[in-house]
Amino acid sequence: MVSTDCMAFRRVKGTVDYFPEDRLLQNMVFDIFRSAAIRYGFSEVEAPALESMPLLAAKSGEEIKKQIFTLDKRSGEELGMRFEFTASLARMFVERQKSLAKPVKWFSLGRMWRYEQPQAGRLREFYQFNAEIFGSGRPESDAEAISLAIESLKALGLTKKDFFVNINNRKLLQGLLLDIIPKSRLADVLRAIDKREKITEQEFDKELSFLEKQKIIKIKELLQQDLDALDYSSMNNMAREGYDELKSVLGFLGRDIVRFSISTARGLAYYTGTVFEVYDAKGKYRALAGGGRYDRMIELFGGQSTPATGFAMGYATLLLLLKEKGLLPKISLGPDYYIAVVSDDIRKEALKLASGLRKKYSVDIDLMKRTLSKQLKYADSIGARKVIVLGPDELKSREVKIKDMATGKEKRIKISSLIQS
Amino acid sequence: MVSTDCMAFRRVKGTVDYFPEDRLLQNMVFDIFRSAAIRYGFSEVEAPALESMPLLAAKSGEEIKKQIFTLDKRSGEELGMRFEFTASLARMFVERQKSLAKPVKWFSLGRMWRYEQPQAGRLREFYQFNAEIFGSGRPESDAEAISLAIESLKALGLTKKDFFVNINNRKLLQGLLLDIIPKSRLADVLRAIDKREKITEQEFDKELSFLEKQKIIKIKELLQQDLDALDYSSMNNMAREGYDELKSVLGFLGRDIVRFSISTARGLAYYTGTVFEVYDAKGKYRALAGGGRYDRMIELFGGQSTPATGFAMGYATLLLLLKEKGLLPKISLGPDYYIAVVSDDIRKEALKLASGLRKKYSVDIDLMKRTLSKQLKYADSIGARKVIVLGPDELKSREVKIKDMATGKEKRIKISSLIQS
Repeated sequence: MVSTDCMAFRRVKGTVDYFPEDRLLQNMVFDIFRSAAIRYGFSEVEAPALESMPLLAAKSGEEIKKQIFTLDKRSGEELGMRFEFTASLARMFVERQKSLAKPVKWFSLGRMWRYEQPQAGRLREFYQFNAEIFGSGRPESDAEAISLAIESLKALGLTKKDFFVNINNRKLLQGLLLDIIPKSRLADVLRAIDKREKITEQEFDKELSFLEKQKIIKIKELLQQDLDALDYSSMNNMAREGYDELKSVLGFLGRDIVRFSISTARGLAYYTGTVFEVYDAKGKYRALAGGGRYDRMIELFGGQSTPATGFAMGYATLLLLLKEKGLLPKISLGPDYYIAVVSDDIRKEALKLASGLRKKYSVDIDLMKRTLSKQLKYADSIGARKVIVLGPDELKSREVKIKDMATGKEKRIKISSLIQS
Repeated sequence: MVSTDCMAFRRVKGTVDYFPEDRLLQNMVFDIFRSAAIRYGFSEVEAPALESMPLLAAKSGEEIKKQIFTLDKRSGEELGMRFEFTASLARMFVERQKSLAKPVKWFSLGRMWRYEQPQAGRLREFYQFNAEIFGSGRPESDAEAISLAIESLKALGLTKKDFFVNINNRKLLQGLLLDIIPKSRLADVLRAIDKREKITEQEFDKELSFLEKQKIIKIKELLQQDLDALDYSSMNNMAREGYDELKSVLGFLGRDIVRFSISTARGLAYYTGTVFEVYDAKGKYRALAGGGRYDRMIELFGGQSTPATGFAMGYATLLLLLKEKGLLPKISLGPDYYIAVVSDDIRKEALKLASGLRKKYSVDIDLMKRTLSKQLKYADSIGARKVIVLGPDELKSREVKIKDMATGKEKRIKISSLIQS
């Protein structure tokens, strides 16, 4: 053993310890997501946490490499920890592309790692709920993905008073922008638009300082536009295509929770059509979820050209919102029964009773050879719902006293009926 | 985007893709473990995957470092991926030691990483079911941990014909060995004994070549001993203490599935009392689970001296055994309903029906604008249990035809009663 001078070790910055109350809460939220996804016809998958660096960097470019937790090289392999699900799921899809019936609807619930500065709702090790549809290029599938995101949040008790969805279409935005700027500047302008909500007007101007002032003004005017005010007749073909898609998606979704937002760009370069982001109504937190269509990615990953759409939803930000709204699922940690053992000579009998009850109930039992009063104190502190006091008399009469810890009421019950009940 | 020459990316060696059938199976097995652990009064926790290298190496020594996936240094921190749960859980326990009611009973279901040569039942990224009891030094708690391991396997349908538990006590083994060898040789001899089942007699002799022949013979004789043949009166105090503990644990567990095995040593140095390993009855696979008592670890991690016991069970080896025994839980992946949409003009109505049904059922629906026959083919290929054919006529009459895909039988049902049912 290594000498450690008996010092306490520290958790790594940006990671979280899930103690029983945290984990139970997370399991309950994830079960709600899981159930929603299954009801929407999605199947759960899981991908490795470790992927090759070429895979991790393929879709998001070199810049993301700074945020990837990379591993010390082993046998010459460059490995990193996944920072999102999509690349891994695309790899898995490509592997079985020929045999899978399309569309493929997959969801996953798992951990990601990103080397960023931790802040409210942003961790270095975090959980995401992710859903992807591979194989359908139609607006129905965009609407299906967005519906799942909405229904998952509703299933947690959130309503349209608590959150909304900003939706846009990359073709529409790009088409309109290309009437103002040259194609070579598109990526930079999209990146600036994506940042816009988080920065000041001055900073936004600075981001676009490579453009003439007149063009910056035109871009700002464009970003004020409402969907119904856009002039279809003056649009180029790319913008029209995007507009039509957007109208279809909104037709399926309605405009109750979903709002058109021409400034929703999604920073990453790979989106090709619908893009969307989910926010809390008060705008207090980072985006709850985001996603969109990425029709060229499967090809990039070595597969046959396949349209795709999907989203990711973070657990950390969601938790902040649920807490604020008083919507955290109620958790109850203690066992159904605690068996207090009156004397040591009946320990084997007590274990037998525990074993019988454990076929149906959660049961805890003294493992410390404690006095009865200490056992009762322990039962109380772990939140046991009922306590059974077991002594030689109870064993002889085959009848035990059960105390309801919430009401304090006691009743006597036959051991046989307890186990069969 | 990085140019990738459109080549397919490969999964990292020793990692696993969990496709829908794999993940569903895993979820079912883990739910069975979760349920068993909760019934035994354990609470689920989860620890970070990333821990500091000093923490990871503290308990298992420098040697384990070779097997740890270490990360490129970030801000001077040396990080690694966890290769077991115990160190992290000990850190978490120490953090809350003062406020937690003892004993603390925690379990976890999660991923580990170990840089080893992949083989049957051994991966580089793998899942473990883990349970620990902190705060009780009594044999009852060893028995409780072992009972949970046994009951978890039984809950999967395995019986005493399929697996058994080898149990030993470190104090007993060490006490008996110290009558033969000096204390300075104990660690090396324990390591050799731990390997013994996997190596030839010649190799075992070679492992012990630092000892006189006579001593090697004595060690081999010792390893032949049965519990009832051991002579208590001639034992030293350490051996007696271990013997008494072992007898107590066996008293609680019985000797039906649990067998005394004096050669069960558990390689790692930190065990202090009970040690055990679970094997398949035919001895075909690596150990299904292993664990024991480690009363000095919490101190090592900076906490107050606290006795502890626990075990870890791997998912990969277990899966091999379940498959062999035909005990893999039955999985059913398809949705309850597939809604086939006869014509595009009723798509919104179809989505409305889907949305209603999705409150209770898993429902898939055409996202491809396919012909009816292609939709039916798709429904069949994804394993949909029932198909609803929806056209303008059905919408007018508010009555749909439902086809049971298993029997081929069709029946007509009112839309209203379908949604309410």
